Amino acid sequence: MTRVCVAGAGTIGSLFAAHLAQVAEVSVLTRREEHASALNERGLTVTGRTELTSSVTAATDPAQLPEPDLVIVACKGSDVEPLTQRLAGHFPAATLMTVQNGLGAEEIAGTHGTWPLLSAVTFMSGTRLGDTAVEYVLDTETWIGPYRDTTPDDARAVAELIVSSGLRAEGFDDLRPAQWSKLIFNATVNAVAALTGLPHDPHFAETAQLSDLGHLVRDLVDEGKAVAAAAGVELWEDPWEMNVLATQRGHRHSPSMLEDVKAHRPTEIDLITGSLVREAQKIGVPVPLHTALYRLVKAKEASYS
Amino acid sequence: MTRVCVAGAGTIGSLFAAHLAQVAEVSVLTRREEHASALNERGLTVTGRTELTSSVTAATDPAQLPEPDLVIVACKGSDVEPLTQRLAGHFPAATLMTVQNGLGAEEIAGTHGTWPLLSAVTFMSGTRLGDTAVEYVLDTETWIGPYRDTTPDDARAVAELIVSSGLRAEGFDDLRPAQWSKLIFNATVNAVAALTGLPHDPHFAETAQLSDLGHLVRDLVDEGKAVAAAAGVELWEDPWEMNVLATQRGHRHSPSMLEDVKAHRPTEIDLITGSLVREAQKIGVPVPLHTALYRLVKAKEASYS
Repeated sequence: MTRVCVAGAGTIGSLFAAHLAQVAEVSVLTRREEHASALNERGLTVTGRTELTSSVTAATDPAQLPEPDLVIVACKGSDVEPLTQRLAGHFPAATLMTVQNGLGAEEIAGTHGTWPLLSAVTFMSGTRLGDTAVEYVLDTETWIGPYRDTTPDDARAVAELIVSSGLRAEGFDDLRPAQWSKLIFNATVNAVAALTGLPHDPHFAETAQLSDLGHLVRDLVDEGKAVAAAAGVELWEDPWEMNVLATQRGHRHSPSMLEDVKAHRPTEIDLITGSLVREAQKIGVPVPLHTALYRLVKAKEASYS
Repeated sequence: MTRVCVAGAGTIGSLFAAHLAQVAEVSVLTRREEHASALNERGLTVTGRTELTSSVTAATDPAQLPEPDLVIVACKGSDVEPLTQRLAGHFPAATLMTVQNGLGAEEIAGTHGTWPLLSAVTFMSGTRLGDTAVEYVLDTETWIGPYRDTTPDDARAVAELIVSSGLRAEGFDDLRPAQWSKLIFNATVNAVAALTGLPHDPHFAETAQLSDLGHLVRDLVDEGKAVAAAAGVELWEDPWEMNVLATQRGHRHSPSMLEDVKAHRPTEIDLITGSLVREAQKIGVPVPLHTALYRLVKAKEASYS
């Protein structure tokens, strides 16, 4: 039986751990002792799209967990550095898979060990209800590709394991086209939602009047597409079409960055929009609108105090 | 003794009425009967920068007020149309003065009568404490210029009257350079404050890092200056310097648009940023950043419901 370690048990980590524990031996690396104890005692319960409770082994020290075949680094982007530093020297036989938004999580993780690396992005979403309970809200896919010392077949094998656990996933020969599609989509939708207070609703696709938000969303997507083109990346999906389709689904999804600013938490703006702006600067493509939104969201964070 | 009618008794109207009543015979045109009754019974009290209580004559029907020499149209920009429509046919001997943000209030007022017109902008600010009480917060100037059938001397005479009442004012040969300076300043500071939640504080002038807000503020000011230049207007003050000076004053002023979005009220975005964007479109000058902020604030208003 495959052994998987999920490092970081927020919403996404909890969804992976609970589902995978139905088909694999799952351990969970947590930051807090009480979180590990709660998981060891009560397991992990999922409600919403699926209903299940799974047993997992949890600890705050990687040395106390069984050797895994696969480590899913499931923390927020800003925690990849400290979390993979804690993994340094552990699990030498495992493959590491990052699932963060933005660009560059694989590179950061790779500096702390010689593990083979898989690159992934996930579109699934949920709501954390507590240390041992999570609601599965959007049953969208996780996309996986090779990154370092891994092959497309390795990516497909992990995708198959995830699919067998009841989640949705797909393996890619090259993740970059999908990763960039998601980056452009995320940079646009998250920042606009965080600044306006709107969930991802039909306003994002409206273009009837000069003052309509859809114009700005399209201009932001076009800036992102120009950066991708200059970086030699052919996008997997058109982020504008992703936006239109998502707003037609009827479900008014509240992007995580909107939830973060509502709760006065630090956002992932540096990792999402920030990585797009830095990449654009490196390549020499102007992105004035993404740069404006980057500064506005940073200023919004500064307004918390 | 000069007779002044203040039409619209919000914060700015109340500050004008209460001060001018110390040196002139002041009437107040209100929208609500109970507001007029309260003013007739209790007068108007100012606290803060000045401390005074003045008697005024108030009514909801212009026909019930004495004939004035000067009418100050002191409502919000969005109310200029209905308010000056109520004045149609009244006070034929009076001069009308508009004091709204943005562009075009004079033109709207002028369609409802043949009154000579003065154009003004005011930088003073306060907090409305109730129907008969207002706090005078920022004792900054009101700038006045001729607009239709009036002369620079008429503008200076009204400025002198206002100064004699304890407020600050200045008459101009041509208001447009000052009006445009204020428009560019306001479009920039109000929209950024409304979106970020920041009062007008030192963040607005910070330019040390790529993500700092001052870069965006300067880019917005530069867009506005390009429109003014194309419109043939030589600015009275540099809006960037106005911004830097204001943020160095130490008082963290909360722009009215930030107060509006906090209270889930409609903002003046259509009159301020909207008038700049429409003017830019007419002249053919691109203003992508002001257009982006225009759409974001409109979307923020849409998020209230």
